[in-house]
Amino acid sequence: MIKAGIVGATGYAGEELVRILVMHSEVEIVGITSNSFAGEDISKVYPNLNGCINMKCESFEEIVGKCDVIFAALPHGLSEDIALECDKKGVVFIDLGADFRLTTEEDYKQWYGLDYKYKELHEKSQYGLCEIHKEAIKKSKVIANPGCYPTSITLGLAPVLKNKLIDIKSIIADSKSGVTGSGRGLSLGAHYPECNDSIKAYKVASHRHVPEIEQELSNLAGEKVMINFTPHLTPMNRGILSTIYCNVLDDKAVKLEEIINLYKEFYKNNKFVRVLEAGSLPETKNVRCSNYCDIGIVLDERTNRLIIVSAIDNLFKGAAGQAVQNMNLVFGLPEDTGLKYIPSSL
Amino acid sequence: MIKAGIVGATGYAGEELVRILVMHSEVEIVGITSNSFAGEDISKVYPNLNGCINMKCESFEEIVGKCDVIFAALPHGLSEDIALECDKKGVVFIDLGADFRLTTEEDYKQWYGLDYKYKELHEKSQYGLCEIHKEAIKKSKVIANPGCYPTSITLGLAPVLKNKLIDIKSIIADSKSGVTGSGRGLSLGAHYPECNDSIKAYKVASHRHVPEIEQELSNLAGEKVMINFTPHLTPMNRGILSTIYCNVLDDKAVKLEEIINLYKEFYKNNKFVRVLEAGSLPETKNVRCSNYCDIGIVLDERTNRLIIVSAIDNLFKGAAGQAVQNMNLVFGLPEDTGLKYIPSSL
Amino acid sequence: MIKAGIVGATGYAGEELVRILVMHSEVEIVGITSNSFAGEDISKVYPNLNGCINMKCESFEEIVGKCDVIFAALPHGLSEDIALECDKKGVVFIDLGADFRLTTEEDYKQWYGLDYKYKELHEKSQYGLCEIHKEAIKKSKVIANPGCYPTSITLGLAPVLKNKLIDIKSIIADSKSGVTGSGRGLSLGAHYPECNDSIKAYKVASHRHVPEIEQELSNLAGEKVMINFTPHLTPMNRGILSTIYCNVLDDKAVKLEEIINLYKEFYKNNKFVRVLEAGSLPETKNVRCSNYCDIGIVLDERTNRLIIVSAIDNLFKGAAGQAVQNMNLVFGLPEDTGLKYIPSSL
Amino acid sequence: MIKAGIVGATGYAGEELVRILVMHSEVEIVGITSNSFAGEDISKVYPNLNGCINMKCESFEEIVGKCDVIFAALPHGLSEDIALECDKKGVVFIDLGADFRLTTEEDYKQWYGLDYKYKELHEKSQYGLCEIHKEAIKKSKVIANPGCYPTSITLGLAPVLKNKLIDIKSIIADSKSGVTGSGRGLSLGAHYPECNDSIKAYKVASHRHVPEIEQELSNLAGEKVMINFTPHLTPMNRGILSTIYCNVLDDKAVKLEEIINLYKEFYKNNKFVRVLEAGSLPETKNVRCSNYCDIGIVLDERTNRLIIVSAIDNLFKGAAGQAVQNMNLVFGLPEDTGLKYIPSSL
Repeated sequence: MIKAGIVGATGYAGEELVRILVMHSEVEIVGITSNSFAGEDISKVYPNLNGCINMKCESFEEIVGKCDVIFAALPHGLSEDIALECDKKGVVFIDLGADFRLTTEEDYKQWYGLDYKYKELHEKSQYGLCEIHKEAIKKSKVIANPGCYPTSITLGLAPVLKNKLIDIKSIIADSKSGVTGSGRGLSLGAHYPECNDSIKAYKVASHRHVPEIEQELSNLAGEKVMINFTPHLTPMNRGILSTIYCNVLDDKAVKLEEIINLYKEFYKNNKFVRVLEAGSLPETKNVRCSNYCDIGIVLDERTNRLIIVSAIDNLFKGAAGQAVQNMNLVFGLPEDTGLKYIPSSL
Repeated sequence: MIKAGIVGATGYAGEELVRILVMHSEVEIVGITSNSFAGEDISKVYPNLNGCINMKCESFEEIVGKCDVIFAALPHGLSEDIALECDKKGVVFIDLGADFRLTTEEDYKQWYGLDYKYKELHEKSQYGLCEIHKEAIKKSKVIANPGCYPTSITLGLAPVLKNKLIDIKSIIADSKSGVTGSGRGLSLGAHYPECNDSIKAYKVASHRHVPEIEQELSNLAGEKVMINFTPHLTPMNRGILSTIYCNVLDDKAVKLEEIINLYKEFYKNNKFVRVLEAGSLPETKNVRCSNYCDIGIVLDERTNRLIIVSAIDNLFKGAAGQAVQNMNLVFGLPEDTGLKYIPSSL
Repeated sequence: MIKAGIVGATGYAGEELVRILVMHSEVEIVGITSNSFAGEDISKVYPNLNGCINMKCESFEEIVGKCDVIFAALPHGLSEDIALECDKKGVVFIDLGADFRLTTEEDYKQWYGLDYKYKELHEKSQYGLCEIHKEAIKKSKVIANPGCYPTSITLGLAPVLKNKLIDIKSIIADSKSGVTGSGRGLSLGAHYPECNDSIKAYKVASHRHVPEIEQELSNLAGEKVMINFTPHLTPMNRGILSTIYCNVLDDKAVKLEEIINLYKEFYKNNKFVRVLEAGSLPETKNVRCSNYCDIGIVLDERTNRLIIVSAIDNLFKGAAGQAVQNMNLVFGLPEDTGLKYIPSSL
Repeated sequence: MIKAGIVGATGYAGEELVRILVMHSEVEIVGITSNSFAGEDISKVYPNLNGCINMKCESFEEIVGKCDVIFAALPHGLSEDIALECDKKGVVFIDLGADFRLTTEEDYKQWYGLDYKYKELHEKSQYGLCEIHKEAIKKSKVIANPGCYPTSITLGLAPVLKNKLIDIKSIIADSKSGVTGSGRGLSLGAHYPECNDSIKAYKVASHRHVPEIEQELSNLAGEKVMINFTPHLTPMNRGILSTIYCNVLDDKAVKLEEIINLYKEFYKNNKFVRVLEAGSLPETKNVRCSNYCDIGIVLDERTNRLIIVSAIDNLFKGAAGQAVQNMNLVFGLPEDTGLKYIPSSL
């Protein structure tokens, strides 16, 4: 059994991790921490866990020594010290926060306003988008679990970028997220009467996931990619739907079937990506509470534009599920161990 | 491996059964049927199942011979013939419909307008509220899986009725159900704009679950119980919350702690019932996509009335999950096999 | 034109008042106040008001001198000083808070933990449930606008209490409220992911509206009435549905039609109460954004119990709309002036 | 008083028209029709109208002679005969359907599969986007009320197209609509459990509003415009949010403030368009149940792309409200008569 600790267990991503790991056949949770609920039993904070796990929130110092792997689900800026301590002790570290996602320190500085404290740790770290970096993840012990929006957008675009089918200047990602994406912290924007039965765009062209998305798309394209990314707050709990627009290069007279086949081929060893047949489109409910990413594709021949729609569960594939998938890879388990949940579409 | 067949697999309860059974370690689904989608692959009807099960809908005749157990999730009036055929072939039959729930034919006639076709089958059948009839269920091969409302109300009242603490004439059950309770069939009442952001009572004092609830409560009380039951349509997908009112008998000067302890004692061998501590109350989200029934209790000393609040997931503990629990009991498996889901409260 | 001021204009009830009064043909808003947004323009706080009203939040002192009527929408305990000042200046005072609702100081002390500061003001004040106290309201200048739950429950029970048809010990009110009922202040309970797609009971047998409801029911019955009242938080923005249970007295062999006629007669001069025909039941959407109270009645002959279902919009008839109705009465306007909104059921 | 008739009064747009016109000071509804509810009182079909209007559904033949204006809210293909009869009788005809929106018959044939029956009527007809065609509307008696998506997108783009600021090949409109947009007719897609808590794209690059949008954008640009348009079904009742992307022409080094001022100037005589200040973005709730169109603009200097977000209420400004606005223009009333509703954001 892998001994796991969760730092920041009482946030939404943390709780989802707890839920998944309690049911994971190869894992034993040996410690959890929480700033807001230190000393409290997590099943008091999340009564859904009642009878499933009874464990008090301790401090990181109390739990790190017992763990083979530490997951951290913290606001940015708090993970580097934890990572350092894990590194010293030989504990695998999987960060659900943003601190290790950007390979360029300037990007981190520009978008998050902070410097890197331990550069050597960043060199050891690996961006954990499993379908793209599988082999590198297996060899790493410091994993930067991707952001929810970047997961949905990068998986949606990887095959056409890798195959150089599209104009990289034309990419627009219009994403719609459920409200759990903004976390458990109270805010007027997530106050029920303010977001129920209404939709809005927010942080247009200024969301911190922009540099992360562009980093991954650039790696896939082999050249610098800049995009427009617009997140929207949607009246639902879970799920991200990204509707991605890009122009097919003029000299690539491709057909929709060819593109779909290319996606299937690209993801053939990745069962968590489901490429839909022509005419089918994803809905966030079809991936709810699962690790799947559903991708549907439309080719508009009138404008020669590709519309790629990808759907994930932001808390699962977009956070805790992918973190467990990373853990499985690092520890040599089958990638889908403990993650074989069929979405509950209702 | 138990070979299971599902008749009526494309309704909401049927699909939930498919979902649970695909993930059940001791079961193999060998056949499914559907009236509306005969010949179609169920993953086309429910795209969430894509990649998890690929199986065409056949006819009952085609599948019955392959099965150790048949589940039926059909409108009332259609299960007796199926049960007869299962009985002949020695196949365990678990009915999610209403045809075998009422032990008195007159009740069935009065509330459902039909006669019993095969009375001997009804004598063999067992009402499958697992926490109340566990031993009898283990010995039966024709199981009437309880209705969703009756499950939540009977589990909420069983301990006080069994212990004769309350005035049986005073019982009122005010239940709130999610919209999946009305099924997949289209109706104006379940049309999104008609039920979103609104609540209503329906079938007040005339819902078909009344005789079923009264039957079970009467059995527990040892005398004829009549209740008021008011179902409400609530703008949510899953969940039933039953708020149950009853007067404590004047000569029973009980305290809340005593009552809670009595509930804990009553359900001590039933891990799917979670009796909450004083001061805590259930929410439907805390049992979502799980087989739990959460029960919270308040004693109003001003009026000497007990308010018992019980919460279940109508599709899980109120339908498919309990059906699998019944199957586990009949086949001698641990009761919670394939049902150890932690509720996803978000 | 009546010159109106609103104290606490940036809470939900306050903003609804602003919205209604801006559109009221006989009213001019001359001042608004806000603790949280002092000095800010209300259309910045509520962008829906953009272009409809541009007015900065001032202090009470700045606005009271300009007003014929002051509405206060404040947490309890803050209205008495405002009322005193209005009284001194001859300004009509309409309180949407709880400070003047209870005629017995002990009740206020017991349920709200505070003493009355100015007893003579309480003697001048009038409980403003318009359909019940119309003539008294017309003569008063200090109005206690009723709570949302008490409005829905008292209107639902008044005719049978006044006519002594029911056992006053048997009353149970099971109410379901939208989330705006808990106000604009942030709380985990009103955080979108916590209440979306879920329902719960809260403050069972301990909600502060209990003494207010019992006061009004007792007045109607002519004797002390005690009830059970259970509020529920329902995943919707607006609306209260109260499902009220009571036993018909054994010597009153009434028929449903008689009861419905009695309700129609009772409310014949009150167009905001719509008594539904037998077989019809209210839905909160049918009163949304309106001053209506819809009442539907079922008589269960099996148990001789009456089930009365009433629906209001908690922010409109349950707060701001009724406050304006009270103002109309005090100022001698037709009762429905500025309130003739047809509910937007969608 | 203008005597108005509504053909198709029991659909969602029809009922919204009834609601608005009952409250309109200059209009008397003299007749309504309904295919599905012929002979029934509309307040039985829509209980929210109870006590506000009592009127039976008649046939078109019965009502046309009494009317000064006929509104039709029908599926496409049914309006031409009605328009012809109105034209003969000198009755103003305002069509909420699609039959008169496209000025090119080939477009109608291609996207709707039908021919024009009465070409001369089409020549007389005027597209009724009030802010763009005000003077022409005043002179016409056959008005094609715009579609909901086209209204939101055209108003969002008109100022930059008219001023030739953008690359017309770069336009992408990603729209999110509430479920009332799909009407009152039952469908699995609008069944509550299927669309609650989930979002999806539909009819990508193939929605019938494409030619209507392109027609209006082309008129504004003075050259043929082709766009990508993706509608999404969002779990809410009302509202359309359109997020529109376009590239600023390289030789136009404009600043955000300039663009916002240009929008304000363009719409200065149109109070129903609210151009938001820099940093503010629309939310559908802020226009709910009102005739407003809110527009917010972001300029991404990294990509030189403009992101224009526009919000309307699909049933109000996107259907019934704009129809009444058109009626006001045709009959010489102030444009906002009967339409001065402040959005109810909650």
